[in-house]
Amino acid sequence: MTRIGIFGYGNLGRGVEAAIAQNDDLELAAVFTRRDPAGLTLRTPGVPVLPVSEAPAWTGRIDVLILCGGSATDLPVQTPQYAAMFNVVDSFDTHAKIPAHFAAADAASRAAGKISLISCGWDPGLFSLARVYANAVLPEGKDETFWGRGVSQGHSDAIRRVEGVLDARQYTVPIPAAVDAVRRGEQPELSARDKHLRECYVVAAEGADKARIEREIKTMPYYFDQYDTTVNFITAEELARDHAGLPHGGSVLRGGVTGWEKEHRQTVEFSLKLDSNPEFTGSVLAACARAVHRMAREGMTGCKTILDIPPAWLSPVPAEELRAHFL
Amino acid sequence: MTRIGIFGYGNLGRGVEAAIAQNDDLELAAVFTRRDPAGLTLRTPGVPVLPVSEAPAWTGRIDVLILCGGSATDLPVQTPQYAAMFNVVDSFDTHAKIPAHFAAADAASRAAGKISLISCGWDPGLFSLARVYANAVLPEGKDETFWGRGVSQGHSDAIRRVEGVLDARQYTVPIPAAVDAVRRGEQPELSARDKHLRECYVVAAEGADKARIEREIKTMPYYFDQYDTTVNFITAEELARDHAGLPHGGSVLRGGVTGWEKEHRQTVEFSLKLDSNPEFTGSVLAACARAVHRMAREGMTGCKTILDIPPAWLSPVPAEELRAHFL
Repeated sequence: MTRIGIFGYGNLGRGVEAAIAQNDDLELAAVFTRRDPAGLTLRTPGVPVLPVSEAPAWTGRIDVLILCGGSATDLPVQTPQYAAMFNVVDSFDTHAKIPAHFAAADAASRAAGKISLISCGWDPGLFSLARVYANAVLPEGKDETFWGRGVSQGHSDAIRRVEGVLDARQYTVPIPAAVDAVRRGEQPELSARDKHLRECYVVAAEGADKARIEREIKTMPYYFDQYDTTVNFITAEELARDHAGLPHGGSVLRGGVTGWEKEHRQTVEFSLKLDSNPEFTGSVLAACARAVHRMAREGMTGCKTILDIPPAWLSPVPAEELRAHFL
Repeated sequence: MTRIGIFGYGNLGRGVEAAIAQNDDLELAAVFTRRDPAGLTLRTPGVPVLPVSEAPAWTGRIDVLILCGGSATDLPVQTPQYAAMFNVVDSFDTHAKIPAHFAAADAASRAAGKISLISCGWDPGLFSLARVYANAVLPEGKDETFWGRGVSQGHSDAIRRVEGVLDARQYTVPIPAAVDAVRRGEQPELSARDKHLRECYVVAAEGADKARIEREIKTMPYYFDQYDTTVNFITAEELARDHAGLPHGGSVLRGGVTGWEKEHRQTVEFSLKLDSNPEFTGSVLAACARAVHRMAREGMTGCKTILDIPPAWLSPVPAEELRAHFL
């Protein structure tokens, strides 16, 4: 049995809670929140909700603490801080800052004789696995990652910062012609614009200049200016009715060649189609917590990623049964 | 550098040879054959071709021996035999007999203080990984595997055993409506007939009774009777011209549900589209040989499967670089 603490009870924390309930060998021990604990009601009966200040007192009663904060400001602080007390798992997803985050978590975990597992959701996470396996098998080739159709929280937030915008939802949409060309093994050269569309649903304040809002969105550097972007103004009611979900997904493809004349195309694809991004990410984190507990029992310490985990350790199924029924 | 021996120089052995040439850290040390070595010419310059009787003399000059024989009669004997002398890798693919094969290889490897890695191609192999990852993340759901469009050697051989057949090629073809329903997360109940068609190209002897041949193929128990099968009679020239390749592929899908009311569908898919099955399988075996060498250097012994290998160990890329660029 692996006793799990959830640190942060937003969409992701609730996704982890639901995932734990689907696994007999995982048990929710406590939830820690920066909000007023009295205001939170868990779905799991009998589990305490506590202020984060009480977390250090739980080191002996939690095998793995899953950190469910954001990558921008929460995890860079929280992961090293709590890695000094617990085995921890996070889904840190700022790709460019992973080496620095790894170094900080590694130092804290080693000093504490514990394990930290960083950046394990689906990208980074399962998509990273797909890239590493495909590259190991096909050293000559080209990777492409497509995201969506799904809600990008970062792009939705960026739109909300535009003056006159009350709320917004941005869908990242892969362009089928690009996906198909990669699937056929053609290894095309693709720009950002060739690969994805950005579809925006915006609730504007009364009297706001919609033409200006649309222009500001479409020309926003990095977020939108390199893409074909559509902006649809809708009411708050329509947003709540039609865009409440957090679907996502995508595909990692590698087109490779083998043979002495490189004459054979070999295409590897890993795809996800997710009705709920936070519940799926929470499910990955829960499986990773199981593996972290196993690594800790094996006496391993320091920071790890999903690339370091023997796949069998993510599963509750015994090794003999995996060989007999899954291999 | 990992020094590799290839044992058996058929389609698969040649695929391994081509894969080694694509990897700077892998080196072909020797090829062992049961045929007359004088009759074989390798593509790799300067590598000896030797009778299998000389293999035992090479234990100190080979880090990993890749066994490229067949699963029916070769590997059940060869893997335990050579696991007593070398670190070995095989692609044993008789799913039902994997536990017995594992036990035999494990005993031999443990006694010798070496590593054996069995059943690592793409199914079993990469498809097994996809099943284990998807099941670990989505405990409530349903798996489906589709194979093809591709040449099934076993089914082609079965047709060749029919009286009056000179040669044959059988393609396993997944049925798009079934694949699409699984992709949509509908978790349909599918019979063998719902999932795959069997498409046969047959060269009949002059004067043979084609109606009887067709009937015997279509009613062959297990191989064809549970499927919709088409039989096309063609000439030997047409077979050589249009069906010389060994393409294959397929998809492993898991449709799962998450959420307290199981209200969210989550679909995971891993797919391969291969121009050359033996070259791709050989490429997987080559990457696995790298991991076996690493496991041996870490002091591990006994029989392993790809489910036991930390993914990073399959890659020649250093861990820091994997984290920076692949995670």
